[in-house]
This record gives sequence, structure tokens and C-alpha cells, in this order.
Amino acid sequence: MRLVTLEDIHAAAAAIAPHVVHTPLLPFDSSLWIKPECLQPIGAFKQRGAVNALSRIPSEARARGVVAYSSGNHAQAVAHAAKLLGMPAAIVVPSNTPQLKIDATLAWGAEVFVVGITERESRAYELVEERGATLIPPFDHPDVIAGQGTIGLEICADLPEVATVLVPVSGGGLISGVATAVKSLRPNARVIGVEPELAADTAASFAAGSLTRWDAHDRARTIADGLRAEPSELTFAHIREHVDDIITVTEDEIRSAIKEIARRTRVVSEPSGAVPVAAYLNRSLPAGPTVAVVSGGNIEPALLASILG
Amino acid sequence: MRLVTLEDIHAAAAAIAPHVVHTPLLPFDSSLWIKPECLQPIGAFKQRGAVNALSRIPSEARARGVVAYSSGNHAQAVAHAAKLLGMPAAIVVPSNTPQLKIDATLAWGAEVFVVGITERESRAYELVEERGATLIPPFDHPDVIAGQGTIGLEICADLPEVATVLVPVSGGGLISGVATAVKSLRPNARVIGVEPELAADTAASFAAGSLTRWDAHDRARTIADGLRAEPSELTFAHIREHVDDIITVTEDEIRSAIKEIARRTRVVSEPSGAVPVAAYLNRSLPAGPTVAVVSGGNIEPALLASILG
Repeated sequence: MRLVTLEDIHAAAAAIAPHVVHTPLLPFDSSLWIKPECLQPIGAFKQRGAVNALSRIPSEARARGVVAYSSGNHAQAVAHAAKLLGMPAAIVVPSNTPQLKIDATLAWGAEVFVVGITERESRAYELVEERGATLIPPFDHPDVIAGQGTIGLEICADLPEVATVLVPVSGGGLISGVATAVKSLRPNARVIGVEPELAADTAASFAAGSLTRWDAHDRARTIADGLRAEPSELTFAHIREHVDDIITVTEDEIRSAIKEIARRTRVVSEPSGAVPVAAYLNRSLPAGPTVAVVSGGNIEPALLASILG
Repeated sequence: MRLVTLEDIHAAAAAIAPHVVHTPLLPFDSSLWIKPECLQPIGAFKQRGAVNALSRIPSEARARGVVAYSSGNHAQAVAHAAKLLGMPAAIVVPSNTPQLKIDATLAWGAEVFVVGITERESRAYELVEERGATLIPPFDHPDVIAGQGTIGLEICADLPEVATVLVPVSGGGLISGVATAVKSLRPNARVIGVEPELAADTAASFAAGSLTRWDAHDRARTIADGLRAEPSELTFAHIREHVDDIITVTEDEIRSAIKEIARRTRVVSEPSGAVPVAAYLNRSLPAGPTVAVVSGGNIEPALLASILG
């Protein structure tokens, strides 16, 4: 299996530069910085992978458009990237997706199809068949992984002495790209994945050395609605190659981390984005300069209010 | 009276670059970007002016330290800058300062003196006398104004087509610096100040053409605790020279703006920081690309929760 390389990620960085924010590292305390990907225009890192993937679609295929299935942030990312590049987009989302994310996807001009939680992939493939459109998977694609990896390039450029990078894990596209970049540029740095205890399938797979599947309804228990997917063969191969450990956090730790991020860095994070900070605050980690990738900030205002109050 | 120049602001930019975040412009809608100065390490733009002012203190005066009086963010800014440069700092704050800001100032290693709302200047001058320390005023100083002006340089560099810049007005240091930079680099752009209706002394002064004083207890009514100061002769001279208009917003408009900023840009703003967005959402403004300087994000979590809920 061919893994994504540092060269792929450098190429992605050049392609996406006009369309993404180079997010600043924000100090959280004396040894932690957050990388606030929630400040991307769609509120999440997924903008990077989507723009890179769409920019590589051949011109003759663009008019037939793109299709994506997603628990939310990838939907907005593909919808926004399609608007930027003048392509039609159809997005399939599961019925437990926050209304905020559905509204945002519609606002970018995409069609939205709401389906049962286990049916999103099959419906997406039907749309591809009907329209001759290009499927943009949320994580299981080298171009998507390379786009997410640009976060790792920026971390190494902005904090050359980085010792540890903490990254949320769901389908594994984010950590695959970030770990490839960080390990290529800083072989001595550690890259650690973080999952909710209630959706810790990747931690189990990592410990077992092979993909271990959890039932989708079990994974759906966590408040971190962006971390309910599971790795593919491709992303798990990157994780085995480049990631040092996968650790877990509780639901209460995730809620507390959202509050601390807002208080200390003035940034709004969604539960999925706060898990690396939850790990930093509650687990023993290697000493040295640490970066937590806060992957997104699309949280319903009422939920944020209940956590802050 | 000598006004601050573009050259002063360029010199400040070079001096403060290692110590401040070059904040990204974040899209709010199709014609508004926010400049999130709440992402500075102290949570407010005041870091820029304080670092510039302290960096210009002669080496023989540094051991005697600095003194500042402030409703909050300037206190943290001077305390943080003093820590960076290895100088002692004594900070005088009024008794209505949010506890969050007092705690943050103490955390930077400064001494904090809490006094009645009208006594902060006199207590600060006593400390200067006793210690031979250097007073760092919150806004009435060319080095402070030049530091805040670096925000204007960044706006013009990052959005060359900017047509309007909206800036909160309190003592006027921020708008003096920003307007000097923007008008020097983009003479056709408009710079508009925004105040709470309940502390609209500068709007009254601007309309009258001369400084009009409001009672401190009246100015203290607004929720925007950072906008209760009034301009000096020096800052008002900059405002008359460079600012196109001063407009006002209501307390309800400020609260709604805090919610919209969090929802659309994933950034936490304090009431004082949200006033330019409140103006954008509720007033008729010139067409074209607009930037709202969100000056700070130090808000008590419980207040933020009540606004979001």
C-alpha cells in the first residue's frame, strides 16, 4: 500500500494556500499551544483536505460535480470547496447531525440528503452512480490525507522545537496526514492520537495491531459527534507507521476542556476538537513543548452555554 | 501637538513581532472579516502597545519597574510585557474589574492594587513617586498608540482592498493607531469608531469638534467594561485628524454580536470587543470589504453562557 509522503503534503500546501487560514499557535499554558483549526472559514480542519481533493479533479469531470457523506464538518468542507471551484455538490448526512452543521452546508449552496446513521455510504454511492459525480470520501483518500497533513507542516514551521503533537482520531485522515508531516520533519517528536473512551475503536486497533471494529451505535454514544467514524485500511496503515500511541478521554474531561479552551485562548471548540486538550489536562504525557490540534468549533450555542455555565 | 506617524508604527511592528500574534482575518460573511485580537496571549490587543512602550524604556530605568492603571486588559498587557522583559510591575485596577482579569494579572507575576473607580490614576502616580518607576498609560502615549497601530498595518497587508475598518473606542489609543496606519496606506478607506450608547462621550466630542466629558459613573453603565475610559488630548487629536465617523450601539446589540461572533467565527469576544460587529449588523455602513477589530475576549464564562443560552 502506498502511503502519503512529505512531498504529497508539500504539494497540497501549495494548492490550498489561497483557500485556507494559516492558523496561529495560541499559548494555553507554559508548555501547551493549541492549533485552532476551528478558525478555518468552515470551522474545521476538513477544509484543507477537501480543497486539495477537489483541486485535483480533472477539468472534464468538474461539471458532473462531487458527492460526500459526512457527520458534518466534511460536508461543509466539500460544499464550500465546491462553491470556491464552481462545482455542484451533493452531501449525505446522518440524521443525528447537529442542525447547525446542516444549515451551514445548505448555506454553501449544496444539496443535502439526510439519511439513517448506517445508510450514508450506500446513499452516497447511489448518487455517484446516478450523476457520474466524483465521490470525495471524508478520510479514506490520499489527497484528503495530504491536505490535512499541511497542519503538520505549519506546526513544525511555527514551533520548530515541538516535542509532542496531540491529534483527535476518528476516521484517521487528520492524524495520518499530521503524523506523516511531523515524523518526516521532526523524527524525534511524538505524535499521539486521542479518542473518546466511548468511541475508542482505534485505541483498541492500535493495541491489537490490526483493525478492530466497534458497532456504529456504540461509537455514537460520545458527545464528540465528529469522532464516531473508524479508520480505513489506508489510514490505519499510516497510524501504524507513524503514530506513537492512542489514548482516551472521558466525556466529562471533554466538557471541561471546552471550557478551559474558551477561558485560556478565547476560542470556541466543539467536543471533537477539545479531546487533545482533555488528554493534556488529565493524562501523563511526555515533557516538552506540546501542540494540541483543536480540529473544529462547530458546536450548538445552547450546548456551549450549558458547558460554560 | 506631534501625532504618531506611519514610520513610528513600522518601528513598533519590528519591535513587537517576536511577542505578539499576527492575527488572521476570519470571514464573518461575504463582506465582513473580523480581526480577532482576542487571540493575543493576554486575550486583547493591548499586548501590542504595552510591549512597544516597555521595549523603549532605557536600560538604566528597567530595574525600578513599571506602573499601570487599567480597567483590565491593559493591566494584563503591562504585567505580561514586564514579565517578558524581566521588569517588576505594579498594576492599579478599579474595584469593578472582572475577577477573571485580576487573576490573570496576578498570574503574570505583577503586584495588583484594587481601588475605587475614580482613584486609579492618583494611586498609580503615588506608586511612580514612591518607586521611581515608569508609568505606562493605557492609551495616552505615542509608544502605546504606535503599538496598537500595527493592527492597521496587518489589515492593509492581509486585505489590500479593505474599504472600511470598524474599531471600538474607549480612551482612543486603539483607533488612533489603527486610523493612522490605515489612512496612511489606504487614503480612500474609511475608519469608523464604535461606542456603546451608554458611554458615547467620544461620539459627542466628535460631533462637537472638541472634547466633551461624561461622568465616570454614567460611562460605567455599559456592559462593555473595556470602553468606559475617555480620550485624551493626544488621542482625540488623532481621531479628529484620521477618523471618518463615530457611531453607537445598544447593550442588546452588543450581546447579540457576541453570540454571532462565536457562531460564525468560533471566537470568544468580550462585550468591548464585539461593538464593531454590533455596528455592522445593525447600522447602515458604506459598501465594500469591511474589517471589524474584535479587540478582546476576556469575558467571564458565566456571562458568556448567559448570552449564548
